[in-house]
Amino acid sequence: MPAQVGNGAKYLAHLNSFKNILGSNNVFTDEESLDKYAHDETENLHFLPDIVIKPRTAEELSEVVKICNENKIPVTPRGAGTGLSGGALPQFGGVLVSFERMNSIIEIDERNLQVTTEPGVITEVLQNAVKEKGLFYPPDPSSRGSCFIGGNIAENSGGPKAVKYGVVKDYVLNLQVVLPTGQIIWTGANVLKNSTGYNLTQLMVGSEGTLGLVTKIVLKLLPHPRYDLLMLVPFNDIEKAGAAVSAIFRAGFTPSALELVEVNALKIVSKFVDSTAVTVSDDVAAHLIIEVDGNHMETLMSEMESIATLLTEFDCGEVFFADDAQQKAELWKLRRRVAEAVKLAGYTIEEDTVVPRANLPALINGVKQLGNEYDFNVVCYGHAGDGNLHIRIKKEGCIYSLDNPDVIPALKALFTLVKSLGGTISGEHGIGLVQKEYMDIVFEEANMEVMKKIKQAFDPNNILNSGKIFDLN
Amino acid sequence: MPAQVGNGAKYLAHLNSFKNILGSNNVFTDEESLDKYAHDETENLHFLPDIVIKPRTAEELSEVVKICNENKIPVTPRGAGTGLSGGALPQFGGVLVSFERMNSIIEIDERNLQVTTEPGVITEVLQNAVKEKGLFYPPDPSSRGSCFIGGNIAENSGGPKAVKYGVVKDYVLNLQVVLPTGQIIWTGANVLKNSTGYNLTQLMVGSEGTLGLVTKIVLKLLPHPRYDLLMLVPFNDIEKAGAAVSAIFRAGFTPSALELVEVNALKIVSKFVDSTAVTVSDDVAAHLIIEVDGNHMETLMSEMESIATLLTEFDCGEVFFADDAQQKAELWKLRRRVAEAVKLAGYTIEEDTVVPRANLPALINGVKQLGNEYDFNVVCYGHAGDGNLHIRIKKEGCIYSLDNPDVIPALKALFTLVKSLGGTISGEHGIGLVQKEYMDIVFEEANMEVMKKIKQAFDPNNILNSGKIFDLN
Repeated sequence: MPAQVGNGAKYLAHLNSFKNILGSNNVFTDEESLDKYAHDETENLHFLPDIVIKPRTAEELSEVVKICNENKIPVTPRGAGTGLSGGALPQFGGVLVSFERMNSIIEIDERNLQVTTEPGVITEVLQNAVKEKGLFYPPDPSSRGSCFIGGNIAENSGGPKAVKYGVVKDYVLNLQVVLPTGQIIWTGANVLKNSTGYNLTQLMVGSEGTLGLVTKIVLKLLPHPRYDLLMLVPFNDIEKAGAAVSAIFRAGFTPSALELVEVNALKIVSKFVDSTAVTVSDDVAAHLIIEVDGNHMETLMSEMESIATLLTEFDCGEVFFADDAQQKAELWKLRRRVAEAVKLAGYTIEEDTVVPRANLPALINGVKQLGNEYDFNVVCYGHAGDGNLHIRIKKEGCIYSLDNPDVIPALKALFTLVKSLGGTISGEHGIGLVQKEYMDIVFEEANMEVMKKIKQAFDPNNILNSGKIFDLN
Repeated sequence: MPAQVGNGAKYLAHLNSFKNILGSNNVFTDEESLDKYAHDETENLHFLPDIVIKPRTAEELSEVVKICNENKIPVTPRGAGTGLSGGALPQFGGVLVSFERMNSIIEIDERNLQVTTEPGVITEVLQNAVKEKGLFYPPDPSSRGSCFIGGNIAENSGGPKAVKYGVVKDYVLNLQVVLPTGQIIWTGANVLKNSTGYNLTQLMVGSEGTLGLVTKIVLKLLPHPRYDLLMLVPFNDIEKAGAAVSAIFRAGFTPSALELVEVNALKIVSKFVDSTAVTVSDDVAAHLIIEVDGNHMETLMSEMESIATLLTEFDCGEVFFADDAQQKAELWKLRRRVAEAVKLAGYTIEEDTVVPRANLPALINGVKQLGNEYDFNVVCYGHAGDGNLHIRIKKEGCIYSLDNPDVIPALKALFTLVKSLGGTISGEHGIGLVQKEYMDIVFEEANMEVMKKIKQAFDPNNILNSGKIFDLN
């Protein structure tokens, strides 16, 4: 059971305390404000908070959380609201914590290749700030122009660069966290190697705001690679495109991006952004977008040529090399806006399946079969190099809800397939509200028991983002 | 309080059960066997188990653990006994689990660049097996010729390659674990990205066998780089050597190894292994060992030259380039056997300090000052590129024990210095028995509370490797 189901009146007693702590202009109860924070990018879900707060410091937040903990008031942390699993939705009302005022980059440490930042910084803003110093923060979710780095920590986000550079968890060195008790801790140290006690840093990353509220973040940075090259490769058979992906790695190449976009998605997004960059002939089923990066242009050119040659074995069409920054930007724009475009075209629920890379062809084939079986239109795109395939479905008259009887059996069949291929439910979006129904497909009861006990260890009153990932019974 | 203090007679009632489960030739109670498992590489510590078992499967182990859990019998997991923090020592007697029979490499998955292995495989055996397929498992602790991969998971081991390739945690995709309740789980999935529930995999890595017994391991592999180059660079000022380290990274280079060895350590190990590979002139204080690797020899040669040029700014001496495989092997032998050599020369307790890389000169300077202050001889060596400095001390008549009044204040001062430099106690060895005294220097009480609650969530009867990392009160 959640601590308490939303009931604004109940919390009025604490409103003045919150205003004293945060300043009255950082505490909101008006309808318009509450409504603004009642939804994210997860379809049409809508849950009103009772109170929205915008703290500036960990100390302020700690004081509020202590009151909430003592009074069992639900607390829901929220980044920029770009999430695709409903992790930031205040399902049980209570206090919604928006981190939008905690938006400073505290220090770019050029000597140690680290950055310390607050959680409300937009990911791309952070990337650009460190790039000005010649440094590189690779994780780049498609929403990087609007999402917050704090939300990326909560969901362990990925993005196209993950295939070479890893995901968010691979860059987080240390976190300042307000625990559900209100205590403030640093989870680790600002070091590259750490075997000092349990890895609370890694436990916090991807815990979807259920174990603590992240208030400062120390990230590892890399020297920014000097060059990158990009190509677009059409295939007339999507399974062969999938097979080509693992062949690239097996041949010893590690592209800095290796994306797959099914042709109907590419057509939709091209129209959506009014782009004529890609001319698609009738026999094309899917494209791979392949990027390599590094400090030696000759090496990169030779790698691109070798990869292009390798791909001919998989019956690829004519390779398009992006000639300049503008062409590269155009291709990336198409890729990054696919989800938005197909969503507007009626494809609902971005699934986030992930399988071992070589099982991608089997996944794609299985997805198409399930589409036929359940009478859905299906579109696939995603981070093929990681085996991370996004899938959206469309059906006349089918409107998404958490308990839609049309959708649930199809998704159960999808995740059962994913599990049978050695994969799992979410590669980078998290479980949040919308995937928890399916956790028992990939986990034993003992796993769920352990996760729930960890939750209880951190949050005995179950106030923090209750009902996400799993329900406590 | 630990579950029970060792008392062989108490466990006799269960001995037959263990023998039925494991076969009587895999259960040992004779004095010689018990003594063999009473110590590891952590100085002169010695704790006798009551029973040694050598399971072959997770299922066997699960049955034994269930009995131990029901009867509150201490269980201590042990790899190859090469640990430097006493993590495998059966401090409270009970059942010692040796994983030496669980020593099969189950599958090298060339299509997905993964390996599934049992925990009792020697790290170097695993590395060589995957290298035969052109694949690369980078983490390479100095003890890789004898340590077990399971022990590496328990301590989140590193080694020289960590500076470019990361530590054990960066390669573990999925673990089969026998929980302290006897339940068997897989912690995740065999995928490169995973945002599906709490990251139990990462929580298990580095938990020093206190949360579960790892019985199968799925590791990510890389394509093996084709070439590497190695050089040895002398410095007449150890702090300048430390400063050179961060300059290399700041200039955009990422060596595949960047090690520091103080000159007295190099002299001791050269004598120990009877090597004349390195001639040391009188004014040398320390050496850097620098390796680069990759697939393009010309790029590597140009990188080495650039790095060598950069180092002249730090008053380095004449650079020695290793010409062939034999010279490389000779240099690596010297580096890998330093710890063993200086230990035999009377330097005790390998400390495992780690600081942000650029603070290495300050750490080295501080260590020397503390040596003077506490009247210890001090020797430094380690993974400078990671800011991970191993320190050993020597004092006439000082014999190591957990409560040595000569040693404790000096180590407290050392870790206080490390903390003030943004660092922490252990980069790759773990806390085990010997460092837990110092945890409160780097952690708040709230951190320790959370860790203890996690322990209790997994192990309510506190049977598994009790008294390591912290004491439960």
